Amino acid sequence: MTSTEAPILLYTVGTANGNSVSVAFEEIKGLYPDTLLSYDWKQLDIMKKAESKEPWFIKLNPNGRIPIIVDRSRNDFVVFETSAILLYAAQQYDKSFKLWFNPEEDIENYSTMLQWLFFGHGGIGPMQGQANFFNFTSKGMGPADAGDVTFSLKRYQNEVKRLYGVLQIRLGDREYLAGSGKGKYSLADIKIVPWLRVRSIAGIESLDEWPSVKSWVQRCESRPGFQAGLKIATLPKF
Amino acid sequence: MTSTEAPILLYTVGTANGNSVSVAFEEIKGLYPDTLLSYDWKQLDIMKKAESKEPWFIKLNPNGRIPIIVDRSRNDFVVFETSAILLYAAQQYDKSFKLWFNPEEDIENYSTMLQWLFFGHGGIGPMQGQANFFNFTSKGMGPADAGDVTFSLKRYQNEVKRLYGVLQIRLGDREYLAGSGKGKYSLADIKIVPWLRVRSIAGIESLDEWPSVKSWVQRCESRPGFQAGLKIATLPKF
Repeated sequence: MTSTEAPILLYTVGTANGNSVSVAFEEIKGLYPDTLLSYDWKQLDIMKKAESKEPWFIKLNPNGRIPIIVDRSRNDFVVFETSAILLYAAQQYDKSFKLWFNPEEDIENYSTMLQWLFFGHGGIGPMQGQANFFNFTSKGMGPADAGDVTFSLKRYQNEVKRLYGVLQIRLGDREYLAGSGKGKYSLADIKIVPWLRVRSIAGIESLDEWPSVKSWVQRCESRPGFQAGLKIATLPKF
Repeated sequence: MTSTEAPILLYTVGTANGNSVSVAFEEIKGLYPDTLLSYDWKQLDIMKKAESKEPWFIKLNPNGRIPIIVDRSRNDFVVFETSAILLYAAQQYDKSFKLWFNPEEDIENYSTMLQWLFFGHGGIGPMQGQANFFNFTSKGMGPADAGDVTFSLKRYQNEVKRLYGVLQIRLGDREYLAGSGKGKYSLADIKIVPWLRVRSIAGIESLDEWPSVKSWVQRCESRPGFQAGLKIATLPKF
């Protein structure tokens, strides 16, 4: 780490997962005016050049996926997987638990946040990703040998809608996924809301079917920190 | 919680995710002879009766998925999502960090464990689950309207194989996914190895292509605690 470098280097793209990390970073910067968190970021070309599959990147993340961070203040320690980056950033830079919960003293809220974080990481993300793929493919923008993908597209769109329904159950009488009472804005919301914002890529346009989800997305994305995070990196042209 | 009840009630099925939780519990019981961890478990009928979709279960986990735990010692606090249960169990019952890492003092190993836990939770699990589905469907055991699923089956089998290749890169010179040196057996291994054990459901028989992965699976499953965990609950007949 040289004197002109920020402590964190973020490799990203303006996808939902990329957005989650930059939103978390910008939220922390807004909530802690004196934070030590600052970061440089580089947008990878994941389409034409498939930079995330190049050997130099595989050395950083063998899974070849963005976002990742390199912590120059910790001897270039690498963190990959969106949710692991969120937890790492919170642990290092959100010492007053403004976006998460004290694991030792607030055991239930901390666990609840993790539960919804994993729900997003293993449910919404992967399933919506599959719906994206088959939606593109159904429009002739996928592999030439795909054949008729009607069934698979419907399978994943239906699963995404089911998962949005799970969020509707949770958010029916709440403002945020985790936390006591109506809840507190946390990493769980930051992980999941960016996916819902880009639902049209999966062919899902409206959230009217899930009114509490719709207002929750608006509630989160109206935050200045959230908006600032969205400005980091851009979505590649498909 | 009555005097005859164990503190933890586990709802499970002998699937990979179900195995992960019972393996973690049995490992903790073996490593801590004086542990307060004891649990009752109930196997749900997720096939014929779809018990995980019944209203009483949706109240516990709106996502309708096993495994979940009810912590009777904490006013019936519910934890769902396999990886969240693993972290909860570790925090409550593995105070000497035998299966995980001290988040405060062992920051890098803790983060690395989380990274691989999320890799398993968002990668291996969901993708192998899709390969399972299309493998069944290709054999006439899926929806009648599925049509030709050759492309989708190949897509998910290829993705699972790619992910096994990522594990091979990581495990090339290591014994376990996280930890210094050759690594330490941890929740990350406990999350992922059960999935590799049941790879034949996805139509992937041999691990010969990934020799370090193959020996890692054998290394983990030879542990008495791992074996004890596999004996809890059974896989439903498909």
